[in-house]
Amino acid sequence: MINVTVWNEYRHEKESDEVRSVYPEGIHEQLKSFLKDEFTVHTATLDEPEHGLTVEVLENTDVLIWWGHKAHQDVSDEIVNRVHERVLQGMGLIVLHSGHMSKIFIKLMGTTCDLKWREADERCHIWTVDPSHPIAEGLGECIKLEKEEMYGEHFDIPAPEELIFINWYEGGEVFRGGCTYRRGNGKIFYFQPGHETYPTYYHKDIQRVIKNSVRWANPTANTYPTYGHHQPVVPIQKK
Amino acid sequence: MINVTVWNEYRHEKESDEVRSVYPEGIHEQLKSFLKDEFTVHTATLDEPEHGLTVEVLENTDVLIWWGHKAHQDVSDEIVNRVHERVLQGMGLIVLHSGHMSKIFIKLMGTTCDLKWREADERCHIWTVDPSHPIAEGLGECIKLEKEEMYGEHFDIPAPEELIFINWYEGGEVFRGGCTYRRGNGKIFYFQPGHETYPTYYHKDIQRVIKNSVRWANPTANTYPTYGHHQPVVPIQKK
Amino acid sequence: MINVTVWNEYRHEKESDEVRSVYPEGIHEQLKSFLKDEFTVHTATLDEPEHGLTVEVLENTDVLIWWGHKAHQDVSDEIVNRVHERVLQGMGLIVLHSGHMSKIFIKLMGTTCDLKWREADERCHIWTVDPSHPIAEGLGECIKLEKEEMYGEHFDIPAPEELIFINWYEGGEVFRGGCTYRRGNGKIFYFQPGHETYPTYYHKDIQRVIKNSVRWANPTANTYPTYGHHQPVVPIQKK
Amino acid sequence: MINVTVWNEYRHEKESDEVRSVYPEGIHEQLKSFLKDEFTVHTATLDEPEHGLTVEVLENTDVLIWWGHKAHQDVSDEIVNRVHERVLQGMGLIVLHSGHMSKIFIKLMGTTCDLKWREADERCHIWTVDPSHPIAEGLGECIKLEKEEMYGEHFDIPAPEELIFINWYEGGEVFRGGCTYRRGNGKIFYFQPGHETYPTYYHKDIQRVIKNSVRWANPTANTYPTYGHHQPVVPIQKK
Repeated sequence: MINVTVWNEYRHEKESDEVRSVYPEGIHEQLKSFLKDEFTVHTATLDEPEHGLTVEVLENTDVLIWWGHKAHQDVSDEIVNRVHERVLQGMGLIVLHSGHMSKIFIKLMGTTCDLKWREADERCHIWTVDPSHPIAEGLGECIKLEKEEMYGEHFDIPAPEELIFINWYEGGEVFRGGCTYRRGNGKIFYFQPGHETYPTYYHKDIQRVIKNSVRWANPTANTYPTYGHHQPVVPIQKK
Repeated sequence: MINVTVWNEYRHEKESDEVRSVYPEGIHEQLKSFLKDEFTVHTATLDEPEHGLTVEVLENTDVLIWWGHKAHQDVSDEIVNRVHERVLQGMGLIVLHSGHMSKIFIKLMGTTCDLKWREADERCHIWTVDPSHPIAEGLGECIKLEKEEMYGEHFDIPAPEELIFINWYEGGEVFRGGCTYRRGNGKIFYFQPGHETYPTYYHKDIQRVIKNSVRWANPTANTYPTYGHHQPVVPIQKK
Repeated sequence: MINVTVWNEYRHEKESDEVRSVYPEGIHEQLKSFLKDEFTVHTATLDEPEHGLTVEVLENTDVLIWWGHKAHQDVSDEIVNRVHERVLQGMGLIVLHSGHMSKIFIKLMGTTCDLKWREADERCHIWTVDPSHPIAEGLGECIKLEKEEMYGEHFDIPAPEELIFINWYEGGEVFRGGCTYRRGNGKIFYFQPGHETYPTYYHKDIQRVIKNSVRWANPTANTYPTYGHHQPVVPIQKK
Repeated sequence: MINVTVWNEYRHEKESDEVRSVYPEGIHEQLKSFLKDEFTVHTATLDEPEHGLTVEVLENTDVLIWWGHKAHQDVSDEIVNRVHERVLQGMGLIVLHSGHMSKIFIKLMGTTCDLKWREADERCHIWTVDPSHPIAEGLGECIKLEKEEMYGEHFDIPAPEELIFINWYEGGEVFRGGCTYRRGNGKIFYFQPGHETYPTYYHKDIQRVIKNSVRWANPTANTYPTYGHHQPVVPIQKK
């Protein structure tokens, strides 16, 4: 059974009645609620010791889901480096919505990961452009959200290794809303939906994408490569 | 100087007053008009002998631009194979708008190249998602067309090697509107805009993209690879 | 359970004592022998009616494995088109060794798929360059074959969407030996090893790669996209 | 004219007679010697103030070439961040040989960039796998070096956006030896050859690849994208 750790900044929910009205127990608990039937789910939040991401927790995590927004700078570099190392070792990482500006995502991408944004209760259509991808399994052609925060191009990321979803927004923008990457032995999926004031994580198709992505990001069982000085695989014929 | 051949089906313009009012001398002549200052431009059309694409013409073409729509089936397989061979040898190919269903594009892609479409005088926004690409040189962030035919996902193409533009349409769709591929020694660029009843090819930024793409698709001067039975590069050490 | 059809040209084995000594019942039976514990395996060969690939057989095939070499031209275009259509619908396709020049692979790639080759009993090292990929699951860093036919670059294929293995040959060449592609809804994997006079398909790691690739290529359950004329997803605001 | 800054660690040459005998004036001067006919070339080295990479120098650099090996840790984070920012703004970056472990390359890649290595005076064959790429212009199929340090897979980098060269080594390894990436508005090329004790940078084809890569990495003139809060491109139709 895949071990999932859902990490949430968990501050909006404490400070805002509006957000709390949507996610009374926190975004992490809502994510856990639909993941726990299929996966072993653990949660962790920013204000726990070590942000809830101890060495032991990460060693027991196959896939880490990350939701953060207003307090990216409060995440300690030590924990970011610890998560980074685990991803390179093979842990899957699912970065949601405003997590695009998290230290861990920026460290893995090598770019600013910046974008355009607007809060205007806009309709959002999420089109599948790679129907053969397992992360798109069971979906129709388009997921329609009545309201989502607009994220617009240019999204300053490396070209996705696989582009699965493209978002349309009422106000005139598009966005590469579902992107995969591999770093070291780890698989990474960025998925745009999930503004804290909208009930996005109650939407069945959004839940399905996240569940699909956890299965996809589950570590591949491999001999970890060796690096450094290397003996010849065959004797070298000297001239 | 780059030798460009602009190929146009050239039937809409003869049969439709509406199209002729936009492109009185044919789409090929309008394309030639803004290309000829920088490139050596030749034109060819469907109803000429060999569709204007004789062996000699292709041998003297560095980059071929293709516009076709209603008569894809009237292009002979012999000429399609001739163009295909030249692309693999290194000739650049720029496929415009409804050329996505041309025999040559389908043969190079290996898929149906089908898509959704709608004629509804919709606004179209073409967003640059790869600002570093030479095909995007000199552009702003977004090209806005007051009217363009909607082309929507799923676009049944192989994942683009480089995705440069994504289109937004008023009606709710998105489209991968600027895509590059390499086949053999040849570079290929597909660009969505150019419905025959709209003045798209009079738009300065659309013209700029096409000019940029010709420069990008110009053949790379190389020793053509050898294939088949191959002598050892070094003596094989027998065991 | 995944339904696999193993297609083999099955002529070398009938005509050559040397090949028959390695694969007495045919390459297809050897492939079936290690696949059947995990998958439902059916076989088909060139000289059966419709090459054994009837509409019914293909409709009941999730993943098709293809081994062909000397008789590519004897495969009828009608069957090639039937297989092509099924791949675009979602059927996985695993192309082995000399299948790189099969009509179906060439049709899907859009290039010549040509390469350099040499039979010289050379050692071949197959290095994993994407250890996170499920097709590499359970492997070490390098598969060593005492003898394999050399296939060398330039390999005239589109840039692989995922490059998983690179081959080293004693004589001085390299080769992109494990490549994935997606076409339509179908997943495609090309894997180099398998010359008919060597016992390659008895090698446990080669068997593992093929089994991994079948799991990877299994169709994704999706609503097949719709194409053609499309109604607005949202009403278009006229100006 | 393209402004190139060649950065060299420049310590091996001062400390080792063997290295000095190959590059008496330093690797940077040898690189400059064949670049200066075509480009405006400036040099900078580690032990200069600000490592020779002042704000002014970088503002006047179109393409930065980086050679470092034993003193990566002596490069200050402040300068690394300065170079990083310039790359994202559009400055090209050519990373040579042991520069794969430089702070700037690691920061842009998001991985360890580690690999296998061996010094054994091995023959190295550099095969072109993307003959259409401008960085391969004017080359044959294979560059043969009598001696080069072996760099072997797994090379812990993100999958290259374009893989142009694959290296073969006498001892049995392969390596992705010529890789391109885009980060922000900047183009990046990694090229493997250039061990300090071998005369690699005197080889005409190696020089040609580096010159080609400078032309390719030259910044694209664009409106730099805007990020952050964004007004609607079109009025949003409220429901």
